[in-house]
Amino acid sequence: MERLSLELRSQAGILEERRLRKTRTHAKCFTSFNCSLFSQWEAKASYQIATPSNVDSSNFLRLEPSKINGSNSAMPNWNIARSNYNSVLDSFEDEYGGIVINADRLPQDPNTFACALPVSLSYWKRIGKKGVWLKLPLELSDLVPVAVKKGFKYHHAEEAYVMLTYWLPEGPCLLPANASHQVGVGGFVLNDQNQVLVVQEKYCDSAFSGAWKLPTGFIQESEEIFSGAVREVQEETGIDTEFVEVIAFRHAHHLAFEKSDLFFICMLRPLSQEIKIDETEIQAAKWMPFSEFVEQPLIQDDSMFKKIMEICIQRLRKNYCGLTAHPVISKFDGRWSSLYYNVGTNSQDSNCHVS
Amino acid sequence: MERLSLELRSQAGILEERRLRKTRTHAKCFTSFNCSLFSQWEAKASYQIATPSNVDSSNFLRLEPSKINGSNSAMPNWNIARSNYNSVLDSFEDEYGGIVINADRLPQDPNTFACALPVSLSYWKRIGKKGVWLKLPLELSDLVPVAVKKGFKYHHAEEAYVMLTYWLPEGPCLLPANASHQVGVGGFVLNDQNQVLVVQEKYCDSAFSGAWKLPTGFIQESEEIFSGAVREVQEETGIDTEFVEVIAFRHAHHLAFEKSDLFFICMLRPLSQEIKIDETEIQAAKWMPFSEFVEQPLIQDDSMFKKIMEICIQRLRKNYCGLTAHPVISKFDGRWSSLYYNVGTNSQDSNCHVS
Repeated sequence: MERLSLELRSQAGILEERRLRKTRTHAKCFTSFNCSLFSQWEAKASYQIATPSNVDSSNFLRLEPSKINGSNSAMPNWNIARSNYNSVLDSFEDEYGGIVINADRLPQDPNTFACALPVSLSYWKRIGKKGVWLKLPLELSDLVPVAVKKGFKYHHAEEAYVMLTYWLPEGPCLLPANASHQVGVGGFVLNDQNQVLVVQEKYCDSAFSGAWKLPTGFIQESEEIFSGAVREVQEETGIDTEFVEVIAFRHAHHLAFEKSDLFFICMLRPLSQEIKIDETEIQAAKWMPFSEFVEQPLIQDDSMFKKIMEICIQRLRKNYCGLTAHPVISKFDGRWSSLYYNVGTNSQDSNCHVS
Repeated sequence: MERLSLELRSQAGILEERRLRKTRTHAKCFTSFNCSLFSQWEAKASYQIATPSNVDSSNFLRLEPSKINGSNSAMPNWNIARSNYNSVLDSFEDEYGGIVINADRLPQDPNTFACALPVSLSYWKRIGKKGVWLKLPLELSDLVPVAVKKGFKYHHAEEAYVMLTYWLPEGPCLLPANASHQVGVGGFVLNDQNQVLVVQEKYCDSAFSGAWKLPTGFIQESEEIFSGAVREVQEETGIDTEFVEVIAFRHAHHLAFEKSDLFFICMLRPLSQEIKIDETEIQAAKWMPFSEFVEQPLIQDDSMFKKIMEICIQRLRKNYCGLTAHPVISKFDGRWSSLYYNVGTNSQDSNCHVS
C-alpha cells in the first residue's frame, strides 16, 4: 500500500519530497552541528496510504488507513468503511514526530481546506504527532486566513511563500526558530600611501553627515563574508580588492525587524586605485590619509569605532592576527563551507607575525 | 493641518510610530553601519492630512490633501472636493521614498481593504513613492489574500504577523532583505584532568550514532554568543561554565529554510563537574579523555572537525589566540553591543601568549 502511495504521488510531489528530504538532512546534520534541533525536518515518507480513486477522487486528500479506525482487515470493505473515514491532508511524516503538509497537494478551495484541516489536525494529534508545517505559496494565499482561524501561527516567510506551524501536544512549542540574524560587512582598505578608502553615504542621519566612513553593506543570500566585503567595496567605490582577514566582529540586537546583526570588519588589499562611486547610495568616496581618518570626531568620540581603529593599527604593525577564511569540507554533508580562524605565527600562510 | 492629523491619531498609533521610528533609527544607523540600506525605514511622520469627520468618518482612511487634486485654496470646499477625493490608507512616510501602512488603522473588512488598497497604491505611485510595507497581524489574516491579489509579496513573518511589501516604481525592487542567518554555538569544555565534555545526541543520523561530540545549539532571540554557549552546555549537560574565547567560526549555506548558518566554536572554562543531561535531546554525556575524543573516526575522518581540534590543541598550548567578547557602546545608538576581537599578546587581559 505504501508503495502504491509513492507511485500515485505526482512527480512534483516526489521532487518536493526529495528537496525537503535534502534540505532537512542538511539542516539536521549541519546547522550548528546539532542533530536534534531540526529533527522535525527529516522527511521520511508519507505515512498516508493511498486508497482506490472511487473512494476519494481528489488529488489532495488521503484517507486514514483502516487500522486507525479499528479495522484490521487486510482489504477493508470500502463501502462500509467510507462513512467512517475522514479526509486527511496529504503530508510527509518526519521521524521525530512532525508533519509536513504536502504543498503540492493542497486543495485550492478555502472551504474544502477549512473542512480538511481540523480533521487532519485531530487525526495527527490522535496518532501522537507534534509540529505541523504548512507552506502556502503566494497563489494559495486564500488558505492563509483559514489556517490562522484553525490555530496556525506564522513561522517565517520568503517572497513567494509563507510558512505556518501548529503545535499539537500540550506544553510549549518546541519547533525550531526562524532565521535570527542579518550579516553585514565593512571593508578596511589601505593603499601603499597609507590612505584608507572612505565613503560619505547619501542617506545618513544628519548628526553624522559629512563624516567619512568605511564602505559597508549586507552580504547577499548565500554569499561568503570574504566575497561580500569585496563586492560591497567594489559596488560603492569601484575599487577592486582581495580579502585578507576578518579583523573583528560586532554582535548587536533588536535592529531591523527586531532581528540581531553580526557585522564583520574585514581587511582588504586594494588591487586598483581609481574610484568610481555608486551614485544611488554614495555621495562621495576618496582615499584619505589614515591619520586624518582616525582623527575624525566620528572615530575619536565613539568608543566602538575607536577600538576598531586601534585594532586595525595593531594589525598594520603586525601585532594582531585576524581570522583568515579556509575552505573546508565535512563528511556530514559533503559540501564546502568556510572556516574562519587565526592562522597564528607558526603557519606558512600567516598574514601577521605576533612577536 | 498636519498638527491636527497628529492629534487625531490614536495613542496606539503614536506609540507604534515611536516604536517604528526607534527601530528604524537603529536599523538605519547600526545595521552594518550602513545608513542607506535601511533608509526606507526611517518613519518621519504621516503625510496624510486629516479632514473633517463629516467628509470621511472612518478611523482608518484618510483623504488626499486637496493640493494633490489641484486645489490650491487654503480651505477647500469640502462638498465640492469630496467627489474628487479618494480614500487612502493611513500610513507613515519615510524620508527616502517608502510608505509604512499603519497597522493600527487598517480596515477590518476585506472588502473595504480591497477597495482602499489599489486607490492607495495608485496615489503613492503618483506622488513618487517606492516601497510599501504592510504588516498584518494574525487577527487580520483575512487581509492577506486581498493584499497578495493586489500584487503584494511576502517579506518576512514572525509568530504573530506577516510583513508584505509592494515595490511601486519600474525596475528592480530595492527593499532590504529578510534575516538571512541562523547562529549556532558549540562549547569546547576541558577540565583539569584533560577531559573534554561530550554528548551523544538522541536524534542523530545513524551514520553518526554512537559518536561523542561537543554540546551545540542555536542561540536564542537576542542572545549573546558567549552566554548562548554557556546556556547550551548547561542545558545539555548540567555543567556550569564561563566563556573564554571564540576559537573559530564556520559559515555555511542552504541549510534550514534555505538560510545560511554561522557556527561559533567557543572555549569555555568548567565551573562544575557533575553531569546531569537534558533527556529530551541528549542520550548521554560524559567527561572523555581529550586524546580519546580526537581519535574518534568522527574527528579523524573529517577534515573540518580535525582542523577545529587542531586549533583547540594549539590554543591549549597557548600558540593560538581566539576572540574575546568586549562590551562596547557606540554613539550611533547609545546601546551596548559586543565586539569580538583577539586581545593579542601585549594586552593585560590576554588569554593566550603567542610566542
